[in-house]
Amino acid sequence: MADFTLDVPISFGHCDPAGIVFYPNYFRWFDRCFHAFLQERAGGHRALCARLDAKGVGLMDVDARFPSPATEGDLMRLQMTLAEWGSKTLRLEYAGLVGGRAVVEGHELRGLFVLRDGRMRAGDMAPLRAILEGS
Amino acid sequence: MADFTLDVPISFGHCDPAGIVFYPNYFRWFDRCFHAFLQERAGGHRALCARLDAKGVGLMDVDARFPSPATEGDLMRLQMTLAEWGSKTLRLEYAGLVGGRAVVEGHELRGLFVLRDGRMRAGDMAPLRAILEGS
Amino acid sequence: MADFTLDVPISFGHCDPAGIVFYPNYFRWFDRCFHAFLQERAGGHRALCARLDAKGVGLMDVDARFPSPATEGDLMRLQMTLAEWGSKTLRLEYAGLVGGRAVVEGHELRGLFVLRDGRMRAGDMAPLRAILEGS
Amino acid sequence: MADFTLDVPISFGHCDPAGIVFYPNYFRWFDRCFHAFLQERAGGHRALCARLDAKGVGLMDVDARFPSPATEGDLMRLQMTLAEWGSKTLRLEYAGLVGGRAVVEGHELRGLFVLRDGRMRAGDMAPLRAILEGS
Repeated sequence: MADFTLDVPISFGHCDPAGIVFYPNYFRWFDRCFHAFLQERAGGHRALCARLDAKGVGLMDVDARFPSPATEGDLMRLQMTLAEWGSKTLRLEYAGLVGGRAVVEGHELRGLFVLRDGRMRAGDMAPLRAILEGS
Repeated sequence: MADFTLDVPISFGHCDPAGIVFYPNYFRWFDRCFHAFLQERAGGHRALCARLDAKGVGLMDVDARFPSPATEGDLMRLQMTLAEWGSKTLRLEYAGLVGGRAVVEGHELRGLFVLRDGRMRAGDMAPLRAILEGS
Repeated sequence: MADFTLDVPISFGHCDPAGIVFYPNYFRWFDRCFHAFLQERAGGHRALCARLDAKGVGLMDVDARFPSPATEGDLMRLQMTLAEWGSKTLRLEYAGLVGGRAVVEGHELRGLFVLRDGRMRAGDMAPLRAILEGS
Repeated sequence: MADFTLDVPISFGHCDPAGIVFYPNYFRWFDRCFHAFLQERAGGHRALCARLDAKGVGLMDVDARFPSPATEGDLMRLQMTLAEWGSKTLRLEYAGLVGGRAVVEGHELRGLFVLRDGRMRAGDMAPLRAILEGS
């Protein structure tokens, strides 16, 4: 059960000379999906950062696999799941489907970057979790 | 009265260090708007090119003005108008609005690129016009 | 005589399913060329803004024409000229050549955005001109 | 010892509202680095595909970690290593450094996509290896 879904109509300009999606675009869509989720749950990244006195909900690592290609005219449904909260990390899982066919699967590991005592640090995730889970 | 409208939710990743849309993105949205219109009217660019024995509905020139900035969380409504058909050109006009405020205005001049006698040429627009105007 | 030149090797990922440069990329290169020039002349956009108490050297309008296509493997030489200073504007002209062949020609009109009395305004260009012309 | 190095001057437009590189750009640079390597060793992707009767040297999976941020004005040196040849895969490893500081580390797993008997398949890597290793 996904926590958020973003529909992405694949356009001509998303594709490369082989006629399939140029892969860095999938990461733009991962990021956009997460930010659209923040918009819905917390009024957006900027409002969230102000509320948490944070610099950003930034990326630590990311990966993706591409089981099959997507091309112009396809409608990709990108599903995002809040998969695991650590004390200083949030693991997001993504699955992109065209029809029932998987075109991308991956994850992002994100942290909350805060400035404390003049240094950037990975902040405690509890306040973010409280906001995003609506508790 | 617009011929096609594309809603673009402005995301964090569309913006630059000044916190506003990085301007080349507006042209990605112009292009995407036109291709979404082709999808609706003609089954997409690829199907259209097959039908017209053409290489593409490509760009000759483009411009844009930016009366005011757009930022993350804004919803831009991008309106496209088929403004003028020439014998070998189609002029498309675009206006992007956030609320009632103009954030971008511009045009694209497009032609139909066809391979004839081994050379790429600007083709006659009449067959494209017939398809896009549904006559 | 160009004021700055940026060499852009055209890569696979810059091109679309028609095998030619996806046009919004040209504007990323216009912008990158201008910022590389700022880097060389003024230590970069951020340093320049700090020195001028400005928010940015932003875009007012832009256009481009595409006399011929560029494709993967091409080396584009992008030449930028400081074409005209107005009291509140700077007109930059760009010409992109592959071999001796023109692939893009265009201009950007930029202004200096400053926050004064709580409002964003177009600032006087004289201090920017003095820095960029090294006088 | 890297097999190929691509210098990437980080520009304003590569960065997001947090003032650091918007992460999908790192994957554009991974891909560009690999294609620049193909250009040098094999005359580019298109020539290589023609020679191998292949559709492309496409991506199967990819990942990246971001030990520290990069920002405008930084010069990133991106080093690529041909890390491991499988019978149907090539593993490429990437490390991006600003000064001596790591800003990105990751890998791509690529295959050779060929059309055989009307179906797209992962082709044997031996001919590609022979070309890229110059044997």
